Amino acid sequence: MPDWDSEKLVAAFESGDRRALSRLLSFVADRDPKVLPILDRLFPLTGEAWRIGLTGPPGAGKSTLVNRLVEDYRKEDKSVGVVAFDPTSPFTGGALLGDRVRMEMVSRDPQVFIRSLATRGHLGGLAVGVDEACDLMDAFGKQLVLIETVGVGQSELEVADSAETTVVVLVPQSGDSIQAMKAGLMEIADIFVLNKCDREDADRAHQELISILELKQDGEEWRPPLVRTIAETGEGVAELVRIIGEHRDYLANSGRLSERKKKRYAAKTRRLAEDELQIRLWTEERTQRRQAGFGRKVSPYELAKRIIDQFYQEIRNEQT
Amino acid sequence: MPDWDSEKLVAAFESGDRRALSRLLSFVADRDPKVLPILDRLFPLTGEAWRIGLTGPPGAGKSTLVNRLVEDYRKEDKSVGVVAFDPTSPFTGGALLGDRVRMEMVSRDPQVFIRSLATRGHLGGLAVGVDEACDLMDAFGKQLVLIETVGVGQSELEVADSAETTVVVLVPQSGDSIQAMKAGLMEIADIFVLNKCDREDADRAHQELISILELKQDGEEWRPPLVRTIAETGEGVAELVRIIGEHRDYLANSGRLSERKKKRYAAKTRRLAEDELQIRLWTEERTQRRQAGFGRKVSPYELAKRIIDQFYQEIRNEQT
Repeated sequence: MPDWDSEKLVAAFESGDRRALSRLLSFVADRDPKVLPILDRLFPLTGEAWRIGLTGPPGAGKSTLVNRLVEDYRKEDKSVGVVAFDPTSPFTGGALLGDRVRMEMVSRDPQVFIRSLATRGHLGGLAVGVDEACDLMDAFGKQLVLIETVGVGQSELEVADSAETTVVVLVPQSGDSIQAMKAGLMEIADIFVLNKCDREDADRAHQELISILELKQDGEEWRPPLVRTIAETGEGVAELVRIIGEHRDYLANSGRLSERKKKRYAAKTRRLAEDELQIRLWTEERTQRRQAGFGRKVSPYELAKRIIDQFYQEIRNEQT
Repeated sequence: MPDWDSEKLVAAFESGDRRALSRLLSFVADRDPKVLPILDRLFPLTGEAWRIGLTGPPGAGKSTLVNRLVEDYRKEDKSVGVVAFDPTSPFTGGALLGDRVRMEMVSRDPQVFIRSLATRGHLGGLAVGVDEACDLMDAFGKQLVLIETVGVGQSELEVADSAETTVVVLVPQSGDSIQAMKAGLMEIADIFVLNKCDREDADRAHQELISILELKQDGEEWRPPLVRTIAETGEGVAELVRIIGEHRDYLANSGRLSERKKKRYAAKTRRLAEDELQIRLWTEERTQRRQAGFGRKVSPYELAKRIIDQFYQEIRNEQT
């Protein structure tokens, strides 16, 4: 893509053209390296959006909750971006009909921008480019960016690195809160939501969660509150919006916000550098080399060493 | 460590000295690079052990099941290695008293070698060095190596890359099998275990799982069987051992085994090469640079680029 095209794209983006945002998001999803200088250029426009991660096990009702949150924020006339990477998300298919219809109404609102990203393989990692997608939505002027995880594997926890407020969504289900604790969700939660609170064991689950939360003595001033919701009907969602606002105020006033942003900055720089190295390392030729090694009486330990040596040699042979 | 020491260690290892195995496993756990040439040297001794991964959500009873499997294999006079990386594993603490006593009996058996590895941070990734630990146990002459995941995040799925037979352990719990499906466990399972089958909803859970398994039409000849167990009492464990044997025969006779080993070899080479690059890239200085970038009006995109450029320059400046 010649430079003038990139100029045009940035100009369109800056004038608020949704197609430009969409196109840049596609570059991000495709890991197209030409988006990097554009992201660098748009970076000064970021920092205004509040990024809210919603995570928790599959089936907790995250998608429905995200949808309700969007509706609530829209009532306050806030512009909202949604980054979903749940293949079963109503945004991307797989939802019940009612949900899908509601979702469609939300997504037809010009102040709402929804984008789903593919997750990395079947391993349930965080979607490629979620940070970049958030940056783009932020730079585009979205006041809120909601990130919905697939609720599996790394993604469940990694989302905390991308969000200012992490909401862990659980349901009244035997042992759910203990599993969440074991899974490390307790450590990343800024707010707990007990969704599907119309279920009969909601009170028991609520108590169970409260007892576990009391065990958490980490000396933090902010103690994650527990909000009960029924996303299906919208009950409790206004309360959740209020608590998210409180968390936002807490972070801003306590100095934790810049701490969090600093950490995120460092983690992102790390990931970007490693991505670049990986792409450069695994050329077609070296990928084939490692795939052809089996059975050739060379150990993976030795083969990895040889591949790295050759990689270094290649860099040394370059003109600088 | 001077070379003769490494020689001594390898000699002791080859003569069957458990302390030598233990020491090498510690090097692996510490990511000490001096173990790499030793692993390369011992590699020709590997390939005999059958590696069985046990995975599934926390609380499914994996540790107890592993313990029962060890007992059963010992009855057949097989030597067994266990690589556990569950912080709540009975092998490493956190178990009920009865479990721990049984575990201790198993671990006093000289034909059983148990090692637990720390997982990478709180993100629930696979333990550092699990492949290497398996290689060492394999080279040491263990006929079976059992790998027990922490049952969280990546580790739940990644274990399939290290094992010949992957056993997914579930319990009769509402929605458990659907969650497992969403989590990608269905794709990696060679065998399903429905543990804690003394629970009242075992039959219903069994049916649920069977219906989901029927949906799986991937054209594979091997259709993952479902084994019901009560690890607490040992019920069903002999059947599980039998089915693991069947899976082993299937892989060996169908040619899938070398396919699997080939894939594992390539994945391992990849990881080893990337580990080496990462260690080299993130020197103290460059780590500080990325941590100090925030607030300096340079975007992470630009900073990552500069760090990588400097890294390449460093390699170019080296004498070859």
